[in-house]
Amino acid sequence: MTRERILGFASEFDPQSFHTDADAAQATFFGGLAASGWHTAAVTMRLLVESVPFAGGLIGAGSEISWPRAVRPEDQLHVITTARELIPSKSKPDRGMAVLESITYNQDDAICQTNVSKVVVFRRGEG
Amino acid sequence: MTRERILGFASEFDPQSFHTDADAAQATFFGGLAASGWHTAAVTMRLLVESVPFAGGLIGAGSEISWPRAVRPEDQLHVITTARELIPSKSKPDRGMAVLESITYNQDDAICQTNVSKVVVFRRGEG
Repeated sequence: MTRERILGFASEFDPQSFHTDADAAQATFFGGLAASGWHTAAVTMRLLVESVPFAGGLIGAGSEISWPRAVRPEDQLHVITTARELIPSKSKPDRGMAVLESITYNQDDAICQTNVSKVVVFRRGEG
Repeated sequence: MTRERILGFASEFDPQSFHTDADAAQATFFGGLAASGWHTAAVTMRLLVESVPFAGGLIGAGSEISWPRAVRPEDQLHVITTARELIPSKSKPDRGMAVLESITYNQDDAICQTNVSKVVVFRRGEG
């Protein structure tokens, strides 16, 4: 997470001083510049797209997300995803929901984001 | 949501054909180009920052989000936020959590996103 992209994402989507101004951020809750949680979520999605090989793609129906620790400039993030459950659709026999748990860590293996998401999956040959 | 920004956000954060290629998107689950749900979430955050006046800013601890309907190019989004609950912190008397429910609608008043978020709030005079 470069400082430049943290500032750029925040100025477009989350223009609050702790995300957009390193000096002003000192006096805030974060005590310094922090990435928007939505930036962390978006970068996590990029890592998921590159690493979770579902035939029909990753189509999210919903997500339960938490940000236990701020992401800082120059942090290096990685994600570990576990498939927790597969729930067949009751109404549509060609599909179901997969429950994925994705944990986003920084370079010190501290957890910056947890995300339990439901994604639409298709039966083999139906996608 | 312009087509250009839908494509731009997706190429950076969610490079799947239904978000990045209007032609290829026709044959997918979405039947046409759709915005990444994380793009909808980020734009919703922008609308929240502009409309919810908390003294210490909007500091999210977590969020429960769903995307019942895709956002399409040229959709115009608006958000209605309701404060559902205020939960004082047991360990830190200067702060608490506010539970905010934000519903993101398109121009036809169809719900594109629901988001129940927990944000850190400070007692008056303590922030």
